[in-house]
Amino acid sequence: MESTGEKHQENGLGAKPTVCFLDTIKDIFDTTQSGLATCGVVPFENSTNGSVVFTLDQIADRTGEYPDLSVCAEIYFDVHHCLVGRKQQQGEVEGQGQGGGLAHVERVYSHPQAFGQCTKFLREKLRGVETVDVSSTSRAATLARDDPSGSSAAVSSAVAAQLLGLDILARNIEDREDNTTRFFVLRRRDNSRSSSSNDDDEVPELEEVLTARRRRDHGGDRDIYSHTKSLASFTVPHRSPGALADVLECFRRARLNLTSINSRPSLAQPFQYVFFVEFEGHRLRDPEGRVADALANVAAVAQSCRWWGSWDNMR
Amino acid sequence: MESTGEKHQENGLGAKPTVCFLDTIKDIFDTTQSGLATCGVVPFENSTNGSVVFTLDQIADRTGEYPDLSVCAEIYFDVHHCLVGRKQQQGEVEGQGQGGGLAHVERVYSHPQAFGQCTKFLREKLRGVETVDVSSTSRAATLARDDPSGSSAAVSSAVAAQLLGLDILARNIEDREDNTTRFFVLRRRDNSRSSSSNDDDEVPELEEVLTARRRRDHGGDRDIYSHTKSLASFTVPHRSPGALADVLECFRRARLNLTSINSRPSLAQPFQYVFFVEFEGHRLRDPEGRVADALANVAAVAQSCRWWGSWDNMR
Repeated sequence: MESTGEKHQENGLGAKPTVCFLDTIKDIFDTTQSGLATCGVVPFENSTNGSVVFTLDQIADRTGEYPDLSVCAEIYFDVHHCLVGRKQQQGEVEGQGQGGGLAHVERVYSHPQAFGQCTKFLREKLRGVETVDVSSTSRAATLARDDPSGSSAAVSSAVAAQLLGLDILARNIEDREDNTTRFFVLRRRDNSRSSSSNDDDEVPELEEVLTARRRRDHGGDRDIYSHTKSLASFTVPHRSPGALADVLECFRRARLNLTSINSRPSLAQPFQYVFFVEFEGHRLRDPEGRVADALANVAAVAQSCRWWGSWDNMR
Repeated sequence: MESTGEKHQENGLGAKPTVCFLDTIKDIFDTTQSGLATCGVVPFENSTNGSVVFTLDQIADRTGEYPDLSVCAEIYFDVHHCLVGRKQQQGEVEGQGQGGGLAHVERVYSHPQAFGQCTKFLREKLRGVETVDVSSTSRAATLARDDPSGSSAAVSSAVAAQLLGLDILARNIEDREDNTTRFFVLRRRDNSRSSSSNDDDEVPELEEVLTARRRRDHGGDRDIYSHTKSLASFTVPHRSPGALADVLECFRRARLNLTSINSRPSLAQPFQYVFFVEFEGHRLRDPEGRVADALANVAAVAQSCRWWGSWDNMR
């Protein structure tokens, strides 16, 4: 699970961005909020292992650290994991089907999300072997390399193995062939370019550039609601029965399809939550005003709510 | 995070149950489904760290392993974590406020949920120290004990430290004082006692015993909807816009307050989900028929749905 902060060399149309790899998901939110990075790329969910709670916890923004961040795009990325380390016995294991060659492995490092995507391999081929959580798969590979005994391995990428001079002990060890991670692209709302506080003016050039690159022909506004997505977070009054259903009803009434729903503890009181919904529709390309209606109605019913951004649906 | 399977010595009213600690949450589902245990106790959510995905993944029951299981009660349990290991320097650290005494710790074992509840302590007092995921906090303490170098510690309980002869290096290291875990009590629907397949007949004696023990005076049926809770899981047709909202609307229309909502990948197709909702109301104590109505309507709208049980609200 790499976590990427992208820094453009210029406020970049054609310029190739400088890519920085950061240790934690929070670091990516921090550098994007501070303006050090033009964009941040964070994993949101994996098709096998579900939501990335580390990202949800930052989007919850419980202490208001990220007032200027929004989501401007999504990226789907096929994920293949390898077991990398030092060969000792019969040599490399090709694929998941074959055994052998792993008896010397006493410890495996990886990111918890990567472990969660390789449970079958770990259970069948490395039962009882210690799994050690670290902050990224690339750090995991480094730790495996640094163990002089050769008994440490990592769930990481083929690229990391190559860069660090490690052997690939097994390839494609993910539970499912269709293992895909969806990432969000974060950007800072560039308020300096406009003196207006109207949200409709908050569409910086960068989003247009990103959108133009990936926009497909959607047949115009007619289909735009099903070809775009938005993210909103909200909390509901603790003692108001039905408040959660009332908020969700706002989207139904506006005929906006909910595509995901998640919750995390609010940490205000035990067993109160911050909710996250994704729905079809774009706040800034909203010919029938349905997104505007829904968000206005949510604001009236919820205790707090925040629109996190809208982007083109990439699936 | 202890995982408990309870086995009653007799089909027990007064008999003290035999308590077994099992390695994984799946083991608890398996032993309860098989009838080896009369009840299983599994963590469902923690007030600091949110849902327990290991439990949700079993409730999703994607391969139909648990056709006879249901949830018959909930238990709230205050959780206090300690850092346990071998003292080496200035002695025990009292509370979170003080430093020192931990410089020799090179590795910390625990269950991922426990790590997730102690992030502040780990970040501030043990920055850069390896954290090693293991299957339970008691196993973590055992691993710390078994390291002859004394440089391993565990996030575990004071009881585990006492049992294993370990030192308590820091007490109450959880992020929040109000750290509470909610557990579900699983039981097997005892179909052998009734030849009828009518769900209304599936109320075995055990549930009555458990309910009687913890039932408070709720003022009769008038308040019963807000003093009981139910759990249902469902999937929605992939290509049916609005299906999720339509299912949730069934609860709103029946005036049943949603108290939690969660989702996990269905693993049928990428980015399709199994949803889990808890709502106020009891399927078997339903004087106005609102729970029955809601579940019937959900069944009509959802692709699949399952009622997992109803119980008394303990908060």
